[in-house]
Amino acid sequence: MSLLYEGKAKRIFTTDQDDVLRVEYKDEVTAGNGAKKDHLEGKGRLNNLITSKIFQYLKDQGLESHFIEQLSDTEQLVKKVEIIPLEVVVRNIAAGSITKRLGFDKGHEFEQPLVEFFYKNDDLNDPLITDDHVKLLNLANDDEIATLKEAALGINQHLKELMAKMDLRIVDYKIEFGRTEDGQIILADEISPDTCRIWALDSDENFDKDVYREDRGSILDVYQAFLTKLEDVE
Amino acid sequence: MSLLYEGKAKRIFTTDQDDVLRVEYKDEVTAGNGAKKDHLEGKGRLNNLITSKIFQYLKDQGLESHFIEQLSDTEQLVKKVEIIPLEVVVRNIAAGSITKRLGFDKGHEFEQPLVEFFYKNDDLNDPLITDDHVKLLNLANDDEIATLKEAALGINQHLKELMAKMDLRIVDYKIEFGRTEDGQIILADEISPDTCRIWALDSDENFDKDVYREDRGSILDVYQAFLTKLEDVE
Ligand SMILES: Nc1ncnc2c1ncn2[C@@H]1O[C@H](COP(=O)(O)OP(=O)(O)OP(=O)(O)O)[C@@H](O)[C@H]1O
Ligand SMILES: Nc1ncnc2c1ncn2[C@@H]1O[C@H](COP(=O)(O)OP(=O)(O)OP(=O)(O)O)[C@@H](O)[C@H]1O
Ligand SMILES: [Mg+2]
Ligand SMILES: [Mg+2]
Repeated sequence: MSLLYEGKAKRIFTTDQDDVLRVEYKDEVTAGNGAKKDHLEGKGRLNNLITSKIFQYLKDQGLESHFIEQLSDTEQLVKKVEIIPLEVVVRNIAAGSITKRLGFDKGHEFEQPLVEFFYKNDDLNDPLITDDHVKLLNLANDDEIATLKEAALGINQHLKELMAKMDLRIVDYKIEFGRTEDGQIILADEISPDTCRIWALDSDENFDKDVYREDRGSILDVYQAFLTKLEDVE
Repeated sequence: MSLLYEGKAKRIFTTDQDDVLRVEYKDEVTAGNGAKKDHLEGKGRLNNLITSKIFQYLKDQGLESHFIEQLSDTEQLVKKVEIIPLEVVVRNIAAGSITKRLGFDKGHEFEQPLVEFFYKNDDLNDPLITDDHVKLLNLANDDEIATLKEAALGINQHLKELMAKMDLRIVDYKIEFGRTEDGQIILADEISPDTCRIWALDSDENFDKDVYREDRGSILDVYQAFLTKLEDVE
């Protein structure tokens, strides 16, 4: 079947079903919009196993997404959607860009989870945008914006519960949503240590890509540790 | 009376009335958050005359603001408010930062005027923020955010009409609001070629601080030309 899209971390293939795609996770890791880049044998497998498990967990909680099934160590089947070009970021604890942007101390716990939209556009460097920008850019209408925020907060509740079972805290993460043929908005793309900031329960020990961003050890070890904890959740 | 605050463009003094301040416009011009800076004899007078005339025009249209009266060539009396640390930006036509930030062509006319909030914080470089950030930072609640946006759009309607009478177009501008003792939110600060982007009706000839930002001539001449047009409005 033909390659539809090759991104930095995944390849997307068509299948013999019009509305189903095959996702292949690559052994590549990048940071800073591709500025830092490495090949890491086994990384695609870890991301595929982790994101499959998380999407399966969400499905078990009654939450619909693009996830159909894991095919192999590095592949999964997903529903084809038209991706809404928004990086929907949910923050429970301040870290990363928001500490610089708004001056929050790293580790500051927000009273309410914060949802931010970034315009998924590499040329513009994925800028933060407001709801009015989302409408101006024709990315989503008022109802859809409300749907995206509600969905993000619902997913957040589930992820917080899941991470608590693993003695971890979900600090922040990026999710993407897409529209199915019939206009329904569902969660798509991936949820993994590549797209989340995850800390130990009582420290800021990372179980995520910050280890790579900040050259603080082997992400293969860290992602494997995360997967082991995830597999131990009953 | 004592100096309450000295900014880049104005000095604020107390008066013998608790709820009244005297604003003195300075002969200083700055750009890029103070990076570029010059002393320009007569600039304070022009800004004071222009902003007094514009606030008086708005008052004549029934729009309340902090403006009480012009005192002298460089001074005015205003109601004391607690400034909400938001730069409320209204855009009718794309220019400046939004062309880089979101990729709009300079000169693109928005179907609806766009209202943006920037957090007035020099240390953070006045970042763009969303409504959720406004609440998170305790700058305003939901009702106040709605009030700010409505007020901004109401002011915009008046400014568009005023500029049309002068054969000009108001491209974008920054306004500030403050709370009076009794919690009412009113327009404050200044509206002048320092805080607006103003173009000729059928070209992008500037009648504003871009002339200074981009070293394209004497802003004294340009501001005087703007004032003359403003004085000719009946
Ligand atoms: N169910 C789906 N249907 C269609 N496209 C999807 C689906 N899930 C994810 N995608 C898209 O597939 C691509 C996955 O590739 P990858 O994550 O490697 O891209 P990337 O390098 O992050 O670049 P991008 O900036 O496009 O995300 C992304 O563009 C993502 O939005
Ligand atoms: N009615 C008012 N009551 C109290 N403060 C006011 C009022 N109108 C304007 N101000 C404030 O007075 C100051 C005016 O000074 P100026 O515009 O020179 O400051 P600035 O250099 O722009 O710095 P800032 O970043 O503080 O605006 C601003 O901080 C403005 O918010
Ligand atoms: Mg991606
Ligand atoms: Mg000012």
